[in-house]
Amino acid sequence: MKSDLDSLMKARNLDALVVFGNAEHNPPMRYMTGGGHVSHATLIKKQGKPAILFHGDMERDEAAKSGLKLISYSHYDGVALHKKANGNALLAAAMRAELMLKDADVTSGRVGIYGTYDLGAIFGMLTHVQKIMPSVEFVGEGHDDSIFMRAMETKDEDEVARIRNMGMVTTLVVGKVRDLLTGCNVRDDEVLLNDNGAPLTVGDVHSKIRLWVAEQGAELPSGFIFAIGRDSGVPHSAGTPTDLMRLGQTIVFDIYPAEAGGGYYYDFTRTWSLGYATPEAQKLFDQVKEIFDTLNDNFDLNTPFANYNIMTCEYFESKGHPSPLHTKAPVEGYVHSLGHGVGLNIHERPFSGLTATEDQRLAPGVVITSEPGLYYPEKGMGFRIEDTLWVRPDGKMETLVEYPYDFVLPMKNWKRK
Amino acid sequence: MKSDLDSLMKARNLDALVVFGNAEHNPPMRYMTGGGHVSHATLIKKQGKPAILFHGDMERDEAAKSGLKLISYSHYDGVALHKKANGNALLAAAMRAELMLKDADVTSGRVGIYGTYDLGAIFGMLTHVQKIMPSVEFVGEGHDDSIFMRAMETKDEDEVARIRNMGMVTTLVVGKVRDLLTGCNVRDDEVLLNDNGAPLTVGDVHSKIRLWVAEQGAELPSGFIFAIGRDSGVPHSAGTPTDLMRLGQTIVFDIYPAEAGGGYYYDFTRTWSLGYATPEAQKLFDQVKEIFDTLNDNFDLNTPFANYNIMTCEYFESKGHPSPLHTKAPVEGYVHSLGHGVGLNIHERPFSGLTATEDQRLAPGVVITSEPGLYYPEKGMGFRIEDTLWVRPDGKMETLVEYPYDFVLPMKNWKRK
Repeated sequence: MKSDLDSLMKARNLDALVVFGNAEHNPPMRYMTGGGHVSHATLIKKQGKPAILFHGDMERDEAAKSGLKLISYSHYDGVALHKKANGNALLAAAMRAELMLKDADVTSGRVGIYGTYDLGAIFGMLTHVQKIMPSVEFVGEGHDDSIFMRAMETKDEDEVARIRNMGMVTTLVVGKVRDLLTGCNVRDDEVLLNDNGAPLTVGDVHSKIRLWVAEQGAELPSGFIFAIGRDSGVPHSAGTPTDLMRLGQTIVFDIYPAEAGGGYYYDFTRTWSLGYATPEAQKLFDQVKEIFDTLNDNFDLNTPFANYNIMTCEYFESKGHPSPLHTKAPVEGYVHSLGHGVGLNIHERPFSGLTATEDQRLAPGVVITSEPGLYYPEKGMGFRIEDTLWVRPDGKMETLVEYPYDFVLPMKNWKRK
Repeated sequence: MKSDLDSLMKARNLDALVVFGNAEHNPPMRYMTGGGHVSHATLIKKQGKPAILFHGDMERDEAAKSGLKLISYSHYDGVALHKKANGNALLAAAMRAELMLKDADVTSGRVGIYGTYDLGAIFGMLTHVQKIMPSVEFVGEGHDDSIFMRAMETKDEDEVARIRNMGMVTTLVVGKVRDLLTGCNVRDDEVLLNDNGAPLTVGDVHSKIRLWVAEQGAELPSGFIFAIGRDSGVPHSAGTPTDLMRLGQTIVFDIYPAEAGGGYYYDFTRTWSLGYATPEAQKLFDQVKEIFDTLNDNFDLNTPFANYNIMTCEYFESKGHPSPLHTKAPVEGYVHSLGHGVGLNIHERPFSGLTATEDQRLAPGVVITSEPGLYYPEKGMGFRIEDTLWVRPDGKMETLVEYPYDFVLPMKNWKRK
């Protein structure tokens, strides 16, 4: 949690941290500011001291929403710095950064660098700062193990409420898509028809999903997945817009909306087959559902998350499918890991892959996905079931939002002959 | 244009470039790949050679859409590297980066770093690479002057068509908002009412804007502006959702949708006053419109963009308003610069501020905004008019999409007594 930041800084011997960039699609800045339209902002926090948010003058009202101590960039004479730097924009930025660090009482020591921002600009600027402030050492931490990712790993009740709220948006939209599909008329060749009598395409469904998520005021990363047939067998294929919707083919629907501007996410997947399923598809779906249920029965407080991924690999291998446990980078069978933490990042700690460290556990406050799947692109089919779960303070695992797991969705206007 | 990249690399003595991150909200990666859902990708291009896109195995179909030469990360043995690095994830990433650079035939020289991505992770990783590949020097360029920003400064016809298409989406949505507002019933105290007879709020209008942009399959950065009264006088205030919509107050509507996933933008602003305008507001609007028109009459091929900003400052100062020309960081009057380039970045070269270099000109292929404005938050009013314009190959300036400039919008169901 956010209150862990100071102790994490201390444990890693970080005297200060600097976060660059705006609060959109930039989890550390969002975490510290709570949002607001502050572009090109900088946040400096010395260990044990409150953070300072540096912002453009025009964005003072938005910056003030953060509740943080504010300093406007206009406090520094940009034109004079630009002249002093002989027009070298990176050097001028570095000279301003020096003044900002001093105003935050940071003049030496190890300073962690965070944020999602223009790599070249910051790399170039820090190269200059390093020269003019040799007693400061800038430190870059690994993406999945930074102090922010550590702090974010456990959520407080407000964060869980925001994630759950995105889950309500998610399942509402999924329900609308289900109603849209099952209400369609069906042509003799099992192609679904839209209201105008034209074939319903994957692209039509994508448009509706975008619209219905926007209607809820949420944001939908463009990589969301609604894919049918072969595409459903390629885990990150978004689906081909020109594909026609048909009965009896597997549909993987993986949707992860976030609060507008890149806030808290929810992550959710269902696999459907409209009207009927082939016996082979039904068999594979049942296996995915079986291990999904087994996992839910076995999730246990403070157990390493990776243990459940190994359990999943072993289950699928026992059914004859390749898995990463004994196949290097498999392209069919079970090809990914079981799940990941969810919060301001769609993928965050704890991770469950085979190289995930033992300290990534089902600790109280953790929010994870459980998403076993099977993929057979050459057979034109894929399967994944995914819920987002919270390890409650009392140690119980809770699926944040319940939604039915039905595989075959009966069509309202079609019956098998 | 993209074809300029090699000559730009040569001029800056860059032997190679590396772009990190996915193709969403990451202009250099989008520029090189054309989009597609490739997360955690890396692109390496040696000077004079085609680029190579390194991608995750699960995203091979999306990566293939780029048409670039592909290498999957699974080509490198992640588990072995992890072991060799004694579990140090940053070092393991650095060792893989060394192999990738070698596969792109980059073993020495100056290598430019680009992309919007996790700063700490890349900074930490490059620190390791620098140690294991001492003959490579990583270089960070300033945000507004990188070789990508230089290449992107001039657009080809396909890029202009995509920007114009976003302009069609923009003006369609603006027209819908105008119809919504002018069709409202009005209470005795001049507050607008929605269909249910409740007061129409700024938040209600924000929701409609989001919905109508999503309906067009476009993306709307959450910082778009629809603000009334005092908020309209604070240039980057997004508007307060609980504010009630009223007659006779200035409304600033600044909207900049992009292709889904962070593609090409359009940038557009109108200022409205519903039903009537106060004489003071009408006077200030007329001044903004006068300089807007004067600028359009004077834009001339290959003239430095900043000249027109100075012209705007001088005009507003002649009318008694503060401007950055003689007031440091003004908070009322004309408080920003005239405009900026628009493309895959909402703000890109050419810039027009007082410190903008002379080489930022209205060259053929450039796409800019012209957006003079006046801001008086204490008087509860603000004004800005903005179009996006293209400098055509024949040297003529073309407003990409025409839309009326009306300030006072007559209400359909209200007449002044």
